[in-house]
Amino acid sequence: MDKSQIAQKLSGFYMFSELQPSQIELLANGTRLVDIPRGGTLFNRGDKAHGFYLLLEGQIKLGVISPQGDEKVIGLIQPGESFGEAVLFLERSFPVYAQTTLDSKVLLITREAIFDILDNDVTVVRRMLAAISARNRQLVNDIESISLQNSTQRLIGYLLQISADSPNPERLQLPANKLTIASMLNLTPETLSRVMLRLSNAGLIEVNGKEIVITNVAGLRNFE
Amino acid sequence: MDKSQIAQKLSGFYMFSELQPSQIELLANGTRLVDIPRGGTLFNRGDKAHGFYLLLEGQIKLGVISPQGDEKVIGLIQPGESFGEAVLFLERSFPVYAQTTLDSKVLLITREAIFDILDNDVTVVRRMLAAISARNRQLVNDIESISLQNSTQRLIGYLLQISADSPNPERLQLPANKLTIASMLNLTPETLSRVMLRLSNAGLIEVNGKEIVITNVAGLRNFE
Repeated sequence: MDKSQIAQKLSGFYMFSELQPSQIELLANGTRLVDIPRGGTLFNRGDKAHGFYLLLEGQIKLGVISPQGDEKVIGLIQPGESFGEAVLFLERSFPVYAQTTLDSKVLLITREAIFDILDNDVTVVRRMLAAISARNRQLVNDIESISLQNSTQRLIGYLLQISADSPNPERLQLPANKLTIASMLNLTPETLSRVMLRLSNAGLIEVNGKEIVITNVAGLRNFE
Repeated sequence: MDKSQIAQKLSGFYMFSELQPSQIELLANGTRLVDIPRGGTLFNRGDKAHGFYLLLEGQIKLGVISPQGDEKVIGLIQPGESFGEAVLFLERSFPVYAQTTLDSKVLLITREAIFDILDNDVTVVRRMLAAISARNRQLVNDIESISLQNSTQRLIGYLLQISADSPNPERLQLPANKLTIASMLNLTPETLSRVMLRLSNAGLIEVNGKEIVITNVAGLRNFE
C-alpha cells in the first residue's frame, strides 16, 4: 500500500473527512501499516499508546480479563472503525487489550503525527471537531430512527393481535386508554402518538379515539 | 442561572466532560443564556454562527423549506443535546433553520470563547477530541446492541410462529437451512448464529441442526 492509497484511506475516514489534501498528506507521512495474523495481540492492557488505530481489514477484539480469569469482550472493531483515540488524547494507558480475531491490517496514526498537526494547525482542530460532531449527530439520528422503527413494529404487532381476536378484524376497539396502552407497550405516550400518526399518514389505519380502523391489513403487516 | 450552574451544565455535557475546572470556568464566562418561547426562531438558514448551542430546556426543531414550500424536519433537539458545532467549526452558514417547538432555554457557547480556548490550550483540544471519540464509540456500541436486540426479537417471533403451527409446539423443525432462514428474516447468517447462541445460552432453546427444542416458552416469549 503506497502513500497515496494511505492518504485515500485517511480522507475516507470520518474523523479526517474535512481535512485538506495537504493536511492529509502530512498525516499520511506519520502512519505505519501493521499486519497481524489472526490471534495476534496489538496491545495489552496497561500499554501506553503509540498513536491510535484505523482498522483496514480483518477484525479486532477489545477485551479485559476479570479477576476470576474470565474474558469479557468490550467491543469488536470492524474495518473502517478506529480505536484508541481517547487513550491517546488523554495520555492514559489502555484499559483493554486488543487481539485480532481474523488476519488483520491496521493503520497506526502515530502520536507524533497527530499531535504535531493538531498543535500546529488550528484549522485541523476545527475541521476534526466539525467532522466528529457531525458524525455524532448522525449516530444519534440513527438511534432515534431505529427506536421509532422498533416502536412502530411493537404497535403493529399489538394491533394485529387485537385484530385477530376481534369479531370484526378491520375495526377494533383499544381495550384501554392511550396512556395505559403506551405503558403496556413500554412506549412513552408521546412516542405512541407519533407512531399512530405515522401509520395513519401512511394510509394504514384511521384513529377515532379508542376505535381504530385498519384500512390496509397487508400494508400494516408488511410496514417497515 | 449563575456562573457556577452554567459551569455545571458545561461539565455535564459530553464534549466538555474531560475538561478541567479552570478550563470549564473560562468557557462558562463566554456563554450566553437565551430564552425563546415556543414557536420562536433561534436562527435562519443562511445565518452565520455566533457560536454553538446546548439545549437546556424545551425542544428545538431543525428544518428546511423545500422549493415547493413544504417543511422538512431534519432533526429534533432534546435537552442535553447540542447543535451547530459543525457549522461553527467549519465557518459555514447554517443549512437549516432552528425553531422552538416548546418554551426553551438555550446556552450559547460563543464563537470567541470556544475558539479562544481551542487556540490557546492544546490540552483542551486533546480532551475534547478524547471525549467526543469516546462518545462516538459508545453510540456505535448502542446501535450494535439495539440491532442485536432487534434481530433477537425477529427470530423469537419466527420461532413462536412455527411453534404455533407445529403438532408438537415445543419441538420444531426449521423448514429450511440456516442460510435461507437468515435471508427470510433479513439477517446475515453470522447474526442468526449469534442470536441462536444467545437464546441457547439463556436456556430458552436447544439447537440440534434443523431441530429446535423450546425449553422455556414463557421465557422465550418475554425475552428482552
